[in-house]
This record gives sequence, structure tokens and C-alpha cells, in this order.
Amino acid sequence: MPKRVDHDQRRKEIVEAAWRLIARGGFEAATMREIAAEAGYANGALKYYFTSKDDLLAAAFQHTFYRINERAAHTIGDRTGIEAIRALCLEMLPLDAERQVESRVAVAFWDRAASSKPLMKIHADAFAIWRKWIEDELETARREGLITSGLPDRTIIDALFFVTTGMRVLPMLEPGVTRPEVQLELLDSVLSRLA
Amino acid sequence: MPKRVDHDQRRKEIVEAAWRLIARGGFEAATMREIAAEAGYANGALKYYFTSKDDLLAAAFQHTFYRINERAAHTIGDRTGIEAIRALCLEMLPLDAERQVESRVAVAFWDRAASSKPLMKIHADAFAIWRKWIEDELETARREGLITSGLPDRTIIDALFFVTTGMRVLPMLEPGVTRPEVQLELLDSVLSRLA
Repeated sequence: MPKRVDHDQRRKEIVEAAWRLIARGGFEAATMREIAAEAGYANGALKYYFTSKDDLLAAAFQHTFYRINERAAHTIGDRTGIEAIRALCLEMLPLDAERQVESRVAVAFWDRAASSKPLMKIHADAFAIWRKWIEDELETARREGLITSGLPDRTIIDALFFVTTGMRVLPMLEPGVTRPEVQLELLDSVLSRLA
Repeated sequence: MPKRVDHDQRRKEIVEAAWRLIARGGFEAATMREIAAEAGYANGALKYYFTSKDDLLAAAFQHTFYRINERAAHTIGDRTGIEAIRALCLEMLPLDAERQVESRVAVAFWDRAASSKPLMKIHADAFAIWRKWIEDELETARREGLITSGLPDRTIIDALFFVTTGMRVLPMLEPGVTRPEVQLELLDSVLSRLA
């Protein structure tokens, strides 16, 4: 099915163009016209691939989500339990240029998602996958006797999501003020509540 | 100087109109035209009060910041130290409808601020005031012997900012999933690291 492959490939190219523009100037600055130009398309051609700017932003957010998961799966390798959870969380944090761009896209997405039911659903689906992933690793850690605290899974998972989300927003706004070592220290202090 | 008072009053009315529109549909949806209509002004009249949409968004963010501080000062009353810090942080969290709107405005602001040096400065100035406020209360608590941990002030303050920021973003995106009691539990667990 060469036509289908082509369509997907083009969607991916357009998403990556949008992604670069959002990273540079935010979601508002990335107009459909500019995204088309950046991707090398005529303005009207984008509509064949994305029905709206929100549709495109959703794809950009999902692209970010898949990248985080791919890197996390690669880093985790054979590790399980708390070490695996830590590795997944680290891939979310803006600790290098690549992850800084991903955080930038996520913040633009969250702003739009807060006022859009379909985008909110996409956010919730992504976080549900992370939630399940962490729950499975907590179960493994518990089976291996590595968790001694009676803290409910949900409390720990919500805490991890709150701190990683805050860490994706603030370093972008105060570069240099919020240092990477403080991010790692806080992440470890949340995880240390398990044992 | 009645003219000056009038100007400030009108700016405030426009900011509040923008604030309501951002709360309903996000920053992108709140066009200058709609903000003018919501405030009861002709479209062109806004330019006399705000030079750009970013200028207006900055004022909306500052409005949010002042509201949080006024409520915090009121709640804190005679309390000092860790109790005062806790009260300030609580006013940032989206625990009721009013604070949910404030968080909504903050998220819209952060998205734009990440790509705008002047807005980034306004964010940094606001957080510097909070940082100083918390430092002063930590000093009081330390003088009273209520802090026994050797954790640097900055580590605690950064941790408080990361968790409160995450808590301002996520409940907006997954209403019902992230419960208020988990927010309080996490805030208290960060503060408990002091003693």
C-alpha cells in the first residue's frame, strides 16, 4: 500500500515542521501558513493531512510522547521496578536540548488542551499509558520486596506526575535558576518514599 | 488626577475581560477583538490601554499573582514560618473555582512566556518575590528551631515551585483524576523534609 505509507510519511514531516516552529516561537506563532512553508508545502495542501491546527498540535504532542517512550524503553533495557520508573521519569525532564524541545511542545499542547475536549482526551490517554506502565513496575518492585511503605500507588504516581510536569514548565521560563541536580534530587526524594 | 485613575480603572476592566475569555477558551481563542467586545469597548480602543496582546496577557498574569498574594497575606495573618509558607502555596493551587481560573491564566501565560523575553522577565520577577517571601519565612522557622534538616533553602523552594506548578497544570487536564487530597499530601510531604 504505497499510498498509505506516503500519507503517513508526509504527516510525519509536517508534524516535525510544526514541532520545530512551536519550539522556536510557541503554538500561537506557528501558523498553518508557516508550518506549510517550513515543511515545504503549499498552504492549502496541509488540509489534506490535518483537518485543523489542533489536529496538528495533537500529533505533535503524540510525537513527543512516543519519543519519550522509545528512549525510556531503550534506557530501561532489563531494569525493572523503581529503577525503570526513575528512567521513564528522567526521559520526561528537560535535561538536554532534545527534551527541552519536547517540554516546549508539551506546554503549548497543555494550554490548548485545557480548552479542548478532544485534546484533553489525547492528554488523558497518554497519561493513562504512563500510569499503567508505572503501576506494573510498582507491582514488580512490591513482589521483590523493594517497597516497604504502605503509600497507595496512586499517591506515588500522582506525585511523580506533579513533579515531572512542574519540571517541564519552570526550567523553560527561568533557564539557569532551576538546576538539573535539584530536579534529580526531588525526583529521588519522591521515589525514596516507597522504601 | 482623575484622568490617571480612569486609565488604571479601564486597564483593570480590560484585564478582567481578557481573564474571563482566557479562562473559557485559552489564550489563542481570546482575540483582541473579542476582549474589546467582552469589556464593552470598540476594537481599536484597546490599543490606548495595551500595546499588544502579550502586554495584555502580562497584565492578566500579574492580576493573578496579586490575587494569590492578597489572599495569602489575609490567610497568613499572624502565622509565620512553615505554616505561612504552606498557606502561600495553598493559594496557588487550583482547589476552588477561583483558583482554577487563575491556574488557567497562568498556563496560557507560561506558553507565551517561553517564547518571549519580556514575558519571561515578568514571570521571573513574580517568582523572585515568592522566593524571597519563602526565604524570609524559612529564616524565621530556623530561628525558632523548627527546621532541623540541613537541606538548602533553594532545594526546598525549587521543590515547592515544581510541585505547585505541576498541580496548577494537571488537574485542569484531568479533572477528577488528580484529587485535592493528593495535592495537600504531596505539599505536606515536601514541607515535612524541613523537620
